[in-house]
Amino acid sequence: MKKITLSDAADALRAQDNILILCHAHPDGDTLGSGYALCRALRSMGKRAAVLCEDPVPRMFAFLCADAPAPDFEPDYVVAVDIATLKLMGDGVCSRYGERVDLCIDHHFTNSGYAAALLLDDTAAAASEIVYQLLHLLGTPITPIIAECLYVGVSTDTGCFRYSNVTSGTLRIAADLLDLGADAARINREVFETKSRSFAMLERMALNSVETYYDGQYATVTVTQDMFRESGAAEDEFDKIAALPRQIEGVLVGASIREQKDGTYKISVRTNPPMNAAEIAAQLGGGGHPAAAGCTLEETLEDSKKTLRRVVEDALRRAGKL
Amino acid sequence: MKKITLSDAADALRAQDNILILCHAHPDGDTLGSGYALCRALRSMGKRAAVLCEDPVPRMFAFLCADAPAPDFEPDYVVAVDIATLKLMGDGVCSRYGERVDLCIDHHFTNSGYAAALLLDDTAAAASEIVYQLLHLLGTPITPIIAECLYVGVSTDTGCFRYSNVTSGTLRIAADLLDLGADAARINREVFETKSRSFAMLERMALNSVETYYDGQYATVTVTQDMFRESGAAEDEFDKIAALPRQIEGVLVGASIREQKDGTYKISVRTNPPMNAAEIAAQLGGGGHPAAAGCTLEETLEDSKKTLRRVVEDALRRAGKL
Repeated sequence: MKKITLSDAADALRAQDNILILCHAHPDGDTLGSGYALCRALRSMGKRAAVLCEDPVPRMFAFLCADAPAPDFEPDYVVAVDIATLKLMGDGVCSRYGERVDLCIDHHFTNSGYAAALLLDDTAAAASEIVYQLLHLLGTPITPIIAECLYVGVSTDTGCFRYSNVTSGTLRIAADLLDLGADAARINREVFETKSRSFAMLERMALNSVETYYDGQYATVTVTQDMFRESGAAEDEFDKIAALPRQIEGVLVGASIREQKDGTYKISVRTNPPMNAAEIAAQLGGGGHPAAAGCTLEETLEDSKKTLRRVVEDALRRAGKL
Repeated sequence: MKKITLSDAADALRAQDNILILCHAHPDGDTLGSGYALCRALRSMGKRAAVLCEDPVPRMFAFLCADAPAPDFEPDYVVAVDIATLKLMGDGVCSRYGERVDLCIDHHFTNSGYAAALLLDDTAAAASEIVYQLLHLLGTPITPIIAECLYVGVSTDTGCFRYSNVTSGTLRIAADLLDLGADAARINREVFETKSRSFAMLERMALNSVETYYDGQYATVTVTQDMFRESGAAEDEFDKIAALPRQIEGVLVGASIREQKDGTYKISVRTNPPMNAAEIAAQLGGGGHPAAAGCTLEETLEDSKKTLRRVVEDALRRAGKL
């Protein structure tokens, strides 16, 4: 693996013709936005290009791919966007293309270096920021639909400019994308201000399950397979549920306890300073980041809750909060 | 009333010394952010300046006013920020200063022109955007705390860059404020990612009250005085509840029905295109904007719901949705 610059990447792309772009499985706004923006730009340069993703595109992002062709050619050059490790490609895509990725464009500092060449900027909030700069170097026009692809990428990876990864550069790129014709008002309404009916029902059930302990410093939500069935919500809608407990004022440790199909419990831990989610999850055989981590417990629901609570109590005590 | 330019406003402020800045009652992030930013800048120019507001500053905005003095002098010059009409000042402030506002800095196109001079930019998403430009003209340094005041103003009036009022100019100003030292990550977490415990409880109750009609095109939430009492939530926390029904996918008209202390019901109507909230509210003696409007009904809860539903049904039918 060789780390390359924006200018190297632009040169490499200029020299190629049949280009396949890979997005990660369970695709989000950034992998799709950066992938389809790059695809459209390469096609406007007269190249053959297409996007491939293991899983279907979520409905709210369908407009990004409208009129973009499915892959119907054997690629000479394979580009991965926003994919930190081979595993995240999904089994089907990985077995076919995983060993022959020529260029990876990514912003995760955890990138495993599986590609021949890596264009990495781990200060970028989204891979779409890097693609925006790349398109400038390529000199291709950024059309309104390309601007919308990139706006979706930048806005979704930052929770609509809310997370701590936002920089002034992120905001200036978003400003440029509005000037280039991205309909941010519509995108924000559809992506950030709309909940599916099934998610709205699951959220209601989850809020009804909230339990708080230690003077409100620890809060949990519990979601069972029955709740998924009754609401009709997809398991991939769970991320926003996991964020709920930590949002309550005074909560230092928020945890979601989610029954999985095999009867085990997946625990997501989110913390506010000074608590460390990764340390808590590590006690239970899991891992993650300081503010968001997870683990799996193979006990009954009641025992899982007790095990988790014991570890959280211990962490709060060590932090001088009890 | 005379409309003036940024440069006129800068000249007028340079010529004054004892300056009182008025914020609107039930203060939000923009009136406080623009008020305290201007106050701090004027004081750094060696002037006497203070901020006055009818109501207490919400706790989450308290850091904006730390170390800023309360008014203890008779002003020679009175500036109103983000106040569209005299009524919004609150009775106490209005009776004392309403007739003697020298300069009003505002972004509401509905500004009633009560001040001697009006600096109005109705393309600005927030009054704080205008104050940012004014401080540049005044040539005062924008310190980190001034940048945080203005960031709070710009971010809160746009739902953290989510609403349709956001322009590329808004995003570029926010980018500048980050570069000037605003700790956006902390502010976003405290302002947008934190709910009071009482609000979390009220939200849960409100979600449990959701009713949907007409194949999910009309949704309501109902909040009673009992719910306010039981949750301990303040009535001014209600705004975010009113937004809930419209967020459900497929909802064209969302309404919140809120029992008031006098037993009447305050109705907030929020619509998605092509429905018009102002037209619906107007049928019931109220008014507002195309996407957000309101009215008051003096009937029982059941009759209020029926009355509202009849008007919404009629509007959906006229729009060809039934």
